[in-house]
Amino acid sequence: METLKAGLLGFGTIGTGVAKVFHTNADLMRQRLGMALELVAIADLDVTTDRGVATTARLTTDAQSILNDPQIDVVIELIGGYEPARTFVLTALNNGKHVVTANKALLALYGEELFKAAEENGVRLLFEAAVAGGIPVLSAIRENLGANRFSGVFGILNGTCNYILTRMTEENEDFALVLQDAQRLGYAEADPTFDIEGIDTAHKLAILISMCFGTWIDFNRIYTEGITRISALDIQFARQFGYQIKLLAIGKCEDGVIEARVHPTMIPQHYPLADVRGVFNGVRLMGDFVGPVMLIGRGAGMEATASAVMGDVMSLARQGRAAALGYPPLSMARLPVRPMDEVVSQYYLRFLVKDVPGVLAQISGVLGDCGISISSMIQSERKVGGFVPIVMVTHDACERNIRQALERIDALPVVEGQSLLIRMENSLT
Amino acid sequence: METLKAGLLGFGTIGTGVAKVFHTNADLMRQRLGMALELVAIADLDVTTDRGVATTARLTTDAQSILNDPQIDVVIELIGGYEPARTFVLTALNNGKHVVTANKALLALYGEELFKAAEENGVRLLFEAAVAGGIPVLSAIRENLGANRFSGVFGILNGTCNYILTRMTEENEDFALVLQDAQRLGYAEADPTFDIEGIDTAHKLAILISMCFGTWIDFNRIYTEGITRISALDIQFARQFGYQIKLLAIGKCEDGVIEARVHPTMIPQHYPLADVRGVFNGVRLMGDFVGPVMLIGRGAGMEATASAVMGDVMSLARQGRAAALGYPPLSMARLPVRPMDEVVSQYYLRFLVKDVPGVLAQISGVLGDCGISISSMIQSERKVGGFVPIVMVTHDACERNIRQALERIDALPVVEGQSLLIRMENSLT
Repeated sequence: METLKAGLLGFGTIGTGVAKVFHTNADLMRQRLGMALELVAIADLDVTTDRGVATTARLTTDAQSILNDPQIDVVIELIGGYEPARTFVLTALNNGKHVVTANKALLALYGEELFKAAEENGVRLLFEAAVAGGIPVLSAIRENLGANRFSGVFGILNGTCNYILTRMTEENEDFALVLQDAQRLGYAEADPTFDIEGIDTAHKLAILISMCFGTWIDFNRIYTEGITRISALDIQFARQFGYQIKLLAIGKCEDGVIEARVHPTMIPQHYPLADVRGVFNGVRLMGDFVGPVMLIGRGAGMEATASAVMGDVMSLARQGRAAALGYPPLSMARLPVRPMDEVVSQYYLRFLVKDVPGVLAQISGVLGDCGISISSMIQSERKVGGFVPIVMVTHDACERNIRQALERIDALPVVEGQSLLIRMENSLT
Repeated sequence: METLKAGLLGFGTIGTGVAKVFHTNADLMRQRLGMALELVAIADLDVTTDRGVATTARLTTDAQSILNDPQIDVVIELIGGYEPARTFVLTALNNGKHVVTANKALLALYGEELFKAAEENGVRLLFEAAVAGGIPVLSAIRENLGANRFSGVFGILNGTCNYILTRMTEENEDFALVLQDAQRLGYAEADPTFDIEGIDTAHKLAILISMCFGTWIDFNRIYTEGITRISALDIQFARQFGYQIKLLAIGKCEDGVIEARVHPTMIPQHYPLADVRGVFNGVRLMGDFVGPVMLIGRGAGMEATASAVMGDVMSLARQGRAAALGYPPLSMARLPVRPMDEVVSQYYLRFLVKDVPGVLAQISGVLGDCGISISSMIQSERKVGGFVPIVMVTHDACERNIRQALERIDALPVVEGQSLLIRMENSLT
């Protein structure tokens, strides 16, 4: 196979994202895979609206023309819901095509039928995008953590709920008001029932439980309670006890018995899951050898979800022959490395100085000479070995300038010993 | 291949962990893979010390007997260092065997030679355990996030440094003292140079940069600065500015130019990476479609590292035929689900009551009757719609008892409306 050919069912938000990745990162993916990926056709009821994405794919209203196209290797199902998605996926599998889907509702209710159909037809049904969007949690469970017996899986899996609870927490607002605002901003659907009642989260939990514990689970056995009864008052009390309230999916396996529940949950404030804010998702796994593993990232949205869909498509293209570094060794570049002198950063600078007048003027004079401007400063009362610490945070500056300035400052008679610099990193939001 | 046969070089801490996974989770891995994994031989200079692990593997002092054993499919290299590890890995690859290694120093310096040898011999060289221990970050980059062009990778990759900085932060202690204590507790080596000077972190960053940006990087081009000059004073000042100090590996790629540096770095306190405490590791990736992704877990230790090694071994066994759910569909169980009534949890209970004497006695009387004991309580001054909120946190209790109690409490004339329960989850440390 020199080119893997894909057909897409559903040209909505996620479908548009997928078409965008096919187009934008075609060269990158070809380099990584040593083969090309081609989106040959897209089926949707609406083939006239401009999605603002460049694609060479044939547009059609006829899904069957994709399902029955012998040149298509992979069908990407992004229609959502039960029908016609279920019938389309079954048809694709029975026609010997691999399927990639983001459809958690379908898998939570009809997974057993679909996975067995894939097995019978010797093809694969992949679904990384169905749980926690762009976060590669399903493949971690399936593959790299596969040597572990899992005892628990915990997830913040619904961006709408987490957005609402985060705003209720940070702005002390009540549920109804924040929900309205979330709807206005596009973070909640016009009919938000599936999200705020926990059903979407329960769909995702069903998939996680099957993968972590190797069991089918009847979706109706998952206890599901939404966030509609939580008030700002409860969030404040929770905080007084040292907790945050999150809509948490909880899966446990103890002595061969499963616990499966989705409900508002108080999590100690200092746990990493408590820090998963806004539309972000987070999943925590507990394995017998690896211990706890946490993954955090975007759980929804056009681009993050498309990343997960395309990860699956690439996995099908590779057929287990992934290059160890992600790129075939002979395709690797030798990119230049920026000399440290040219690195730009904010800096924390700490000086120890004699407690005499004019010191600050001398230091800031040198910094000014070197083109370095100060963002904030602390001059401490406390003495260290008879000297006074002066601490500054700079605006962005170039390492070369900082080093020159420190050399000159350290030579001042009023300055003791070698001053300290610590680089800052503010790009990690 | 009905059984994948592995030979292990190096029976130290990690080697012992690997032998333990082979033994403990043999059945689980066989179920997941649909085939068996067998550890047939272990080579170490010391074959007499009892490692306290059950294994049927042949013990030998002769590594060549493993490297030349035609029945061995995979060689697991856990010797560490450059030689003889490098020669052994090359011999294994040239003998047509796959290699799994945790040796970051070897890969950072000789990766290009080794990966090309693997490619030429049509075998695979895997190394998930080399970076961030049990956290499945390398496979995420290689596979599931492969559709992304990465712009940055950031990591807390050395447990020793993070342990020292965390204790300096939380206990306001100076470096030398905490280092001594870390050595006493086994969190730092007798010669801690590689860790505290940032060299181990730089080895790992070299690997991350190759994988994220598809480039070879000369290890000497990575700017590396350790944590020995950081004082408790600086940590306090950093905190005043709203930052934590971490030893951070920073890899960026901008317009085809790489930034590669390891140094103490100030990270805003509210960033998830700032919350990576003690011996834990954390990695943050930034991809053009997925956005930011964070992974947190154990970066070292016998068991977590063994989990990563065995994930690679399983990947070799699968050859890309991973079951979609991690288990072949026909091997899945139907485990019983615990009825919600029998779930045990701590509970937050919120009541709205009339502001009259004796209310608390009535409520706590019912709770006591139902066998529920209170861990803490807040009675608020503030009124809500003319009623007073009473909030309690229980000790572990059974859902059935809580529901019975709430039903009785809600029927009390002094209690307004429906009381609220929120379950708590304290097992996520």
